[in-house]
Amino acid sequence: MQGDHMTPDDFRRLGHEYVDWVASYWERVGELPVQPPIVPGDVASKLPAVPPTTGEALEGVLADLDDVVVPGLTHWQHPSFFAFFPANTSGPGVLADIISSGLGVNGMNWSTSPACTEVEMVMLDWFVELLGLPDHFRHAHDGRGGGVLQDSASSSTLCTIIAARNRVTPGGDLSKLRAYASDQAHSSIVKGARVAGLADDQVRSIPTDAAFAMDPAALAEAIDADRRAGFVPFWCCATVGSTSSMAVDPVVDIAGICAEAQVWCHVDAAMAGSAAVCEELRWVTEGADVVDSWSFNPHKWLFTTFDCSCLWLADSRPLVDALSISPAYLRNDATETGGVVDFRDWQIPLGRRFRALKPWLVMRHYGAEGLARHVREHVRLGRLLADRILDDDRFEFAAPPALNLVCFRLTGEDPDARTSALAEAINGSGQALVTPTVLDGRPAIRICVGQTWTTERHVEALWDLVTASAD
Amino acid sequence: MQGDHMTPDDFRRLGHEYVDWVASYWERVGELPVQPPIVPGDVASKLPAVPPTTGEALEGVLADLDDVVVPGLTHWQHPSFFAFFPANTSGPGVLADIISSGLGVNGMNWSTSPACTEVEMVMLDWFVELLGLPDHFRHAHDGRGGGVLQDSASSSTLCTIIAARNRVTPGGDLSKLRAYASDQAHSSIVKGARVAGLADDQVRSIPTDAAFAMDPAALAEAIDADRRAGFVPFWCCATVGSTSSMAVDPVVDIAGICAEAQVWCHVDAAMAGSAAVCEELRWVTEGADVVDSWSFNPHKWLFTTFDCSCLWLADSRPLVDALSISPAYLRNDATETGGVVDFRDWQIPLGRRFRALKPWLVMRHYGAEGLARHVREHVRLGRLLADRILDDDRFEFAAPPALNLVCFRLTGEDPDARTSALAEAINGSGQALVTPTVLDGRPAIRICVGQTWTTERHVEALWDLVTASAD
Repeated sequence: MQGDHMTPDDFRRLGHEYVDWVASYWERVGELPVQPPIVPGDVASKLPAVPPTTGEALEGVLADLDDVVVPGLTHWQHPSFFAFFPANTSGPGVLADIISSGLGVNGMNWSTSPACTEVEMVMLDWFVELLGLPDHFRHAHDGRGGGVLQDSASSSTLCTIIAARNRVTPGGDLSKLRAYASDQAHSSIVKGARVAGLADDQVRSIPTDAAFAMDPAALAEAIDADRRAGFVPFWCCATVGSTSSMAVDPVVDIAGICAEAQVWCHVDAAMAGSAAVCEELRWVTEGADVVDSWSFNPHKWLFTTFDCSCLWLADSRPLVDALSISPAYLRNDATETGGVVDFRDWQIPLGRRFRALKPWLVMRHYGAEGLARHVREHVRLGRLLADRILDDDRFEFAAPPALNLVCFRLTGEDPDARTSALAEAINGSGQALVTPTVLDGRPAIRICVGQTWTTERHVEALWDLVTASAD
Repeated sequence: MQGDHMTPDDFRRLGHEYVDWVASYWERVGELPVQPPIVPGDVASKLPAVPPTTGEALEGVLADLDDVVVPGLTHWQHPSFFAFFPANTSGPGVLADIISSGLGVNGMNWSTSPACTEVEMVMLDWFVELLGLPDHFRHAHDGRGGGVLQDSASSSTLCTIIAARNRVTPGGDLSKLRAYASDQAHSSIVKGARVAGLADDQVRSIPTDAAFAMDPAALAEAIDADRRAGFVPFWCCATVGSTSSMAVDPVVDIAGICAEAQVWCHVDAAMAGSAAVCEELRWVTEGADVVDSWSFNPHKWLFTTFDCSCLWLADSRPLVDALSISPAYLRNDATETGGVVDFRDWQIPLGRRFRALKPWLVMRHYGAEGLARHVREHVRLGRLLADRILDDDRFEFAAPPALNLVCFRLTGEDPDARTSALAEAINGSGQALVTPTVLDGRPAIRICVGQTWTTERHVEALWDLVTASAD
């Protein structure tokens, strides 16, 4: 009957069609304009203003995806998507989401679905091995530290701000608190601080050096000055791989300053952290053994479908103390006896999907060697692009190229306006997408190589587009 | 080569197998124990301690799902799952997630994938129609109000706390702020307040009446007293459908008190809100036209796969003002010219999946009539259970039964201990799952009818189990 629940058999049939649609989309996405030439309202105007009264066959949705949705998408899975940080997906990632959505379990407590919690604990331990992170981040180590999946690095950051804040003052007057991050740190830090009850000027912006890395002496001075002025320094973020230019803050120095000042030291390695799957790039984890928390996003550069961000804590207790609340309807023997991890106390929301299936399938499909090979190839392609820029007088680096990121601008007359125009020309062509950013107060073009299906051919095509548009 | 990216053809083949696995899981989940008889560590001990070095075929994962994962799950999609609030999934919901994961777009800004934002705006407007919510909640109305998808009601609540907080004081000394909710309100309110920088005692717990609904006179007194004592009342949550007993606060009265006191009035209708798809139950939206914000979770009782929570604001500006930050790498023409909605400013994290596909497919598959029919049936089944309890001297209601929720306890000798033992016996049987809760300081058993595949047969079986265990 119309409007009945979909039967398992109908789900089988439609599920195959939907899977096939995704596979076909991946096959043709490289031929689509990366960014759609549309204006606000174009998509909405093609949809009915009210929902249908009676149910309809979901075969029709696939036609609407082709006609209404796809023409209105910026294609993050396009092999010529070089913008922002990639949010790459993959076959294994989508397969895992099929299972997660189908099981529909909620892992808020261990007891509400033990496998959801335990697979997540093991996956976070797997990542410790995969990236060469310190042993005390493992759940299996001594139960004090451990990792958890969050939806995004923003939430990972926010969790650590709250844990650190509550260590110092459990609510009330927060006006004396001071947080620290470099002037290149991600916007989610100020946003997280705001959410946590701080005003923007309570986040001190620490100057960076010529390579856009935080100046640790300036950090030490800022903490000292704040302390002398009666403020309470409580949290600091070291960025490993800044958004604008992939700058790497000196984590060990920063952690030392923080430890002395009893300031929580968090590392945001949202994209760069994935590089640690390659032995020769494992320097991105330097200092992880001496900080309070460390995070990276497999959904950025490790072929794990959004959302999947990892956060490790050297000691989980301040976070759990800050976020734990136990009403009657959430109490259970497993929790009361203390033998389990309840991840609801490690995150902002209560409910949680079975996200750990994603890294599980990704690591099994690729293996550590496969992941390293793909990340290494992206880094090689980034270097290839950097070499072209180095060899061409028309361009100069806007920041030292690092890992899979290259920032550059035009030389010659009126370089700023022409750099901005170049970015617009590239993005307007629909053939590639790059991010216009600002470095040292001047426009720059930022290219990030990290999409799952990006190959040398796409980087060469991008370079042709850049040079043709520059002339 | 081993560890290569999965080809679209391999994804087609495996995708069909994974879809079939989910369909088979749904066919057999009713035969599994709802809650697994396992102890902490059982699942983890069956998994390798480190990730594989080389990639493997993902067919093997399906065997592990059967052998390792399924025996460790609490089955939220079991038709005899009567615990917590359901987090029901459905064929349409999973199909939508396949597309969302496959597209892998990030809708943080309009410009980063216009269709992601515009489909979401239209879906939130569809829900306004479906539930009979006030017109000014529509994006298409005058652009001042509108709705947004969040991961959960916790996050919806937190967003409104932050918007309200920043209206009053944009960071700094928060110690004078006071929030209000009934003593039956959800734990996410105190958690949200903590995240936002308040101490627990800054959330005033307002007493409730015999039906566990907030006493508006007590609210008015509390606000008055706080104001006189120099505090700043700033936010209040009216609960429509409390967690423990489905109590409904008098929203209109509360909203009036809040308006006079310039306190933000938020409605948390996380589960009960879905009832508004039935004309005769539309009273659950009463007062929505006079509050500042209103939220419900389609992922609870509207067959929409977790995560999918809706939040509407009468005026979105305080939220956007509180959360908007625009670094260079996120600036774009569409945003600067002000003609678009950037949902990153309506939520805590930056990144966001294409979640709106889920309600789109659910509403199209079921139609408004189909959704109403299924919710109505759950309510009928709840009433059927309530009638049995009413007719049986061995039991009494612990709260007035409402919508799809029934709370009861045993009568006779030592009723509290026997009620707790009864809950344990039911849950220990593996044949059904209920939630032990506390009402009026006494143990009670709480039964919620809302799982997608629950039918009269399952409610009858539950009643047989309850009566057999009670004897």
